[in-house]
Amino acid sequence: VDLEVARGNARRVARYAREHGLSWRPHVKTHKSRAVARIQLEAGASGLTVATLREAEVMADLTHDLLLAYPPVGRAKLERLTHLAAGGTGVPAGNGDGPTRLTVALDDPGVLASLAGACAEREVEVGVLVEMDVGLGRTGVAGPEEVVALARATDAAPGVFFRGLLFYPGHIRSREEEQAGPVAAVGERLAGALRALEAAGHPPEVVSGGSTPTLWRSHLLPGLTEIRSGSCIYFDREAVEVGVAGPDKLAYTVLATVVSTAVPGRAVVDAGSKALAKEARAGQEGYGFVLDHPEVLVAGLSEEHGILDLSNTDWRPRVGERVRLVPNHVCVSVNLQDALLARDGEEHRWLALEGRGRGPWTG
Amino acid sequence: VDLEVARGNARRVARYAREHGLSWRPHVKTHKSRAVARIQLEAGASGLTVATLREAEVMADLTHDLLLAYPPVGRAKLERLTHLAAGGTGVPAGNGDGPTRLTVALDDPGVLASLAGACAEREVEVGVLVEMDVGLGRTGVAGPEEVVALARATDAAPGVFFRGLLFYPGHIRSREEEQAGPVAAVGERLAGALRALEAAGHPPEVVSGGSTPTLWRSHLLPGLTEIRSGSCIYFDREAVEVGVAGPDKLAYTVLATVVSTAVPGRAVVDAGSKALAKEARAGQEGYGFVLDHPEVLVAGLSEEHGILDLSNTDWRPRVGERVRLVPNHVCVSVNLQDALLARDGEEHRWLALEGRGRGPWTG
Repeated sequence: VDLEVARGNARRVARYAREHGLSWRPHVKTHKSRAVARIQLEAGASGLTVATLREAEVMADLTHDLLLAYPPVGRAKLERLTHLAAGGTGVPAGNGDGPTRLTVALDDPGVLASLAGACAEREVEVGVLVEMDVGLGRTGVAGPEEVVALARATDAAPGVFFRGLLFYPGHIRSREEEQAGPVAAVGERLAGALRALEAAGHPPEVVSGGSTPTLWRSHLLPGLTEIRSGSCIYFDREAVEVGVAGPDKLAYTVLATVVSTAVPGRAVVDAGSKALAKEARAGQEGYGFVLDHPEVLVAGLSEEHGILDLSNTDWRPRVGERVRLVPNHVCVSVNLQDALLARDGEEHRWLALEGRGRGPWTG
Repeated sequence: VDLEVARGNARRVARYAREHGLSWRPHVKTHKSRAVARIQLEAGASGLTVATLREAEVMADLTHDLLLAYPPVGRAKLERLTHLAAGGTGVPAGNGDGPTRLTVALDDPGVLASLAGACAEREVEVGVLVEMDVGLGRTGVAGPEEVVALARATDAAPGVFFRGLLFYPGHIRSREEEQAGPVAAVGERLAGALRALEAAGHPPEVVSGGSTPTLWRSHLLPGLTEIRSGSCIYFDREAVEVGVAGPDKLAYTVLATVVSTAVPGRAVVDAGSKALAKEARAGQEGYGFVLDHPEVLVAGLSEEHGILDLSNTDWRPRVGERVRLVPNHVCVSVNLQDALLARDGEEHRWLALEGRGRGPWTG
């Protein structure tokens, strides 16, 4: 990881958000690191977004404003969540300045009821964002009517209060110049929900949305108050292909060594699917590229082998040579590492990935 | 993990190997667990295969016969390797009965020279298997001539001695009943290399090969002495699709909870690409299936979301319901876990994954 590049990325996103009157609440799933979360907060992030209880525990004492953008289902998760809301953290020192303000996104009346019950039992309150599907078809209620119904259910429940709307247009992965139509379509669905909430007497305080591929178009979404882009701290091959970042903004690479050149037209490196992640991009070959030879794709991956396709290059790597690889999707590659070697100017140090894994964080 | 099923799998493979006069040296990359390696050795495995130095360190005191089926490139790896060969292990107790017999597979004269130099320096000897490509096009020298050349180079080098031939027919992923042709083609290439080695006065002591999809046809490969199948301890969706194992042999599943049913025709579980691995199988949809509802595929994955396609089932999962998922590829899913919950008859216990990660093992 190049921390200077990462800091520049954080500053640029924070500035964009500020210029458009938006908050930036980066998703920590990308980096899972307390040190990197601090960089984001110092650059002007308004809080942090997490997906897992582990991430929440790790980040709770770094910010007083935490969004769990994932439905907390089941007794174990609700225990950990309400413990945090009551001011507990994974670390003994705790959050000295008082309890963390927790907000939870959800799309199901049953999940809301369980959350409300668990909060009431522990005498804490958490905010609720109702999640609406805007075309991805993953999670989120279908439309304005269901959004209003869940907002009303929040009123009636103890331990929770309605804060607003959340959505994720993760289906828009087109190049930046082809995004106008899809972004407008999301905007229309969004506007419908906002009108319905206003009419029902539930104007949202927070409208949280956007994605990394659509990052620089977030201000075109009506009523938006907050973006959550996480992978913009490091970026990846997808970001470069979509056009949301240039290659000079890539802050994360996998350092690999060439271990075989026995098969003609190829070179094999010691970074495979257990280092890069074998995550294909629709309509595109390969699992990454060589930073210093972007014409060279990682054409194949097995667990400990990355196969570099040399058919478009004059470069002939030697066994023992080191290369830096850019993965298709940075978040899943980071999650495969024990720790990250960070360059900070002239210095090198290790970045811990405290948010990686599932168990409770014990500091 | 169901340890009774895993033990049955180990016994069945060991019996097959025994009946055909083969050794079974399972690859530990699948499980990365000392406890599971012990199960394999108790069932009759002749030794263990590893891909990383971490795996080698973790397994070194469990067996006296370790194969590193990966070229050790670079000073750091050679240091760790020769330390093991000199009788050191990652654990303070060490290997009480003397040094581990180490064998290394390689395909490059430069790698051989560095290995020989490092071994001579530390006054240890390691065996060498020359790797030959039999159609996968990943690693391995091209044919008989290159095999003989590397075998001869081994003679001339200090610290190493020629033990035989290694290959991996990982390109054969067809259904069992369609494997006869591809397996015969591999057999022909293999026979050519064996004839050349005999003629050159280098008859191989070890011929190590085969793959999990071709597991039950290994005895059809001429001259084979050893198989390395690793994923046969747990099996996975690929194994079931290929026909190498029935669903009752699946020993590893990911336990997930349904977290959303808001989008019609789908259910979302809390196991995504960071639990199952988003590894597509050529020509096949989905990233896994539900063990108890095999008609239900994991149709999509994002980092913390698995999308179950309900279009072929009457089953309507509720939020909060738990399901067991079978991943496409077990090895990369295991590598994503902190530890594995194992059921052993009526008992449950945690399996550590000591071989996971890259750093030196310290016990």
